[in-house]
Order: sequence, then structure tokens, then C-alpha cells
Amino acid sequence: MDKEDSRYYEEVVASKRMFGGKIFDVDVEQVILPNGVPAIRELVRHHGAVGIIPFTDDGKMVFVRQWREPMEQETLEVPAGKIDQDEGSDLKEVALREMNEELGMTTDQLDEVTSFYSSPGYSDEKITMFRADNLKEVENKRPLDPDEFLNVEKLTLDEAKEQIKAGVICDAKSIYSVTYWELMNAKA
Amino acid sequence: MDKEDSRYYEEVVASKRMFGGKIFDVDVEQVILPNGVPAIRELVRHHGAVGIIPFTDDGKMVFVRQWREPMEQETLEVPAGKIDQDEGSDLKEVALREMNEELGMTTDQLDEVTSFYSSPGYSDEKITMFRADNLKEVENKRPLDPDEFLNVEKLTLDEAKEQIKAGVICDAKSIYSVTYWELMNAKA
Repeated sequence: MDKEDSRYYEEVVASKRMFGGKIFDVDVEQVILPNGVPAIRELVRHHGAVGIIPFTDDGKMVFVRQWREPMEQETLEVPAGKIDQDEGSDLKEVALREMNEELGMTTDQLDEVTSFYSSPGYSDEKITMFRADNLKEVENKRPLDPDEFLNVEKLTLDEAKEQIKAGVICDAKSIYSVTYWELMNAKA
Repeated sequence: MDKEDSRYYEEVVASKRMFGGKIFDVDVEQVILPNGVPAIRELVRHHGAVGIIPFTDDGKMVFVRQWREPMEQETLEVPAGKIDQDEGSDLKEVALREMNEELGMTTDQLDEVTSFYSSPGYSDEKITMFRADNLKEVENKRPLDPDEFLNVEKLTLDEAKEQIKAGVICDAKSIYSVTYWELMNAKA
């Protein structure tokens, strides 16, 4: 729906960059609400990310274990990575790069499953999810980012559900991935 | 796992508040990586949120249509709201308040389904999802927040899947909710 057609459209009358970072920026906008009243919107600006749901030939899913400073805990997450500002629109290439860097794996079978905004109330971060099958070890693994430390772990569906209960698998894209996996099994 | 036991733990040696907002704050931390090398972490600090998966007695799910300034579009989302700083730990009360404000509905059947961090790489925002059944109209509807304008819409599962394809249902908690719904149906 175009903004002109929306009964709920908010007109932006001013915008100010409050923080410029390497991962995200923050803008504060002044908007005019549908009833003509001014309001303030705080916005996180992010270039977006890809997530991968990697299935092994023997029916496991591949996760990475790492430290997440925002929650001060180790997590198990499906592999993912942010889209660099200078990257084109080929998200499959971004997904293959992250599979190479984080898992040391590649695939010729990568299919887009869905995409979603992480926090639509204040952030424009969109994550696009791919399902990866027919995984192969890469011959020339790319190095991790210098500030990344992680361990690759393959889990069965029951093990993944246990790790959700334990709070180790605990983020939106990974909970989605395990729910997608259950759905595939339930339909099969 | 305690941080002392983690091979991946990052020690925080300095932290600076870069933005203080009404919805979130931004900190930049200096950390020491597991290999002793310093690095910078950019962090969004958020008090967390609840989301509700509301099922009507005739098998529909209840969504709210609203303008989302970060993506400059109308969305359909399951009802949700952020936890206020001064609110206690009773997330069911927060969920009932949001159901009242956004839907004009209440329930005596509210069950926690899961919870997840929205963007674990840089944000501590956690959203806790409740399933709501046996919905009732409230007699004393609380007013919306003064900057909220929305429309309540009830969709069948097929209609919800169409709205995902159309990009109108497009955020993590709502895509999760529809996938959860499909899973319940597939298992039934």
C-alpha cells in the first residue's frame, strides 16, 4: 500500500542522526500522526541480514555456539550474517559466504524460506532466511571475522528442542528455524 | 553456562552510553576477546516486550494493522507491547494490558509459548510470546497510547499466509505466530 493511501501514514517532518555505528545507526524523527498531532520516533537503521537453516544428510541441523555480549551468555544459533553496505542484492551470495566462514560448508541447494523484520516498532532490520540442503565441506574456508569465535555443532530435532528449553537456542531466527523444522516433520 | 566457564566469554572493560531514548538506549562497549585482543561492541538496550497469539473461537487469529515508520509501510502484526521500565515481572499482566488496549479483548486462558531475542548480535530485546484462547470483549477498554493508530482484523490461516506473501505480515513475532499456527494444524 502506498503511503498516500494509508489511513495510518505518519509524515516525517524532521530527522536527526543520533548515533553512527559500524553495525547500526540511530535516527530520531519528528512525525505528524494521522490526527495531525506531532510525535517522536526513535529508529535503528540496519542494512539487514541473512540466516541459514542448514540440514545435514542425516537429518540434523547445524548451529554455531558463540558468546553474545548483549545477553552475556553463550548461545546456539543457526548461522547468519549481516549484509555489508557495499554488497549487492544477491542475498544467496551473502548466505554462501556466511556458510563458508562460520561452518566451512557450501551447498548447491539453497532456497529462500521467508523473511522478517526483527523489531518492526523501531528497527528496519530485515532478515532473509534460506534453507540449505546437500551440504559439502569447502576446500578453501574463508577466515572468520577477527572478532568472531565460535564452535559448529550438529543437533537432532529433539536435542534442539532441549536447547530451547535450556535457553541456549534463544533468538528469533533460530527459534523460527526449529519451528520450521518441526512443521516440516509434522507434515511429512 | 557461567561466563567463567565459557571459552567464548568477552570481558567488558569500558562502556559508554551513546544514546538514551524512550524506547531503547545505545551503549558502546570495549571488550577483550577470548584471544586477548580488544574489540568494540555496539549494543541496543531494551526492556523487552510481550507478543500475543490470539485465537478466536471460530479458528481465526487476531491481527492489528498499523503504520510502521521504520519500514514506511502498513503492517499486520499480532498484538504486542513493550514492558515498561517500572513494570514488575508479571508478563501475563503486560500481555492482558496490550490485549485490552489494542484489541479491546481479554481472556482467562493465556499460556506462554516461547520467548526469543530479536537481534542477538547487538540487542538485548527479548520478546515473550503468549497464546490467548477463549477471547472476550472487555467492558472497560483502556485507551491506546496517544501515538498509536490501528485497526483490528481477524484472519483465517489461508488469509494470513496470503498476507505473508504480500509482505504485509512481515515481522519476526507475527511470522513465528503463523508458523506456530500451521504447526498446530499439521499436528492436529
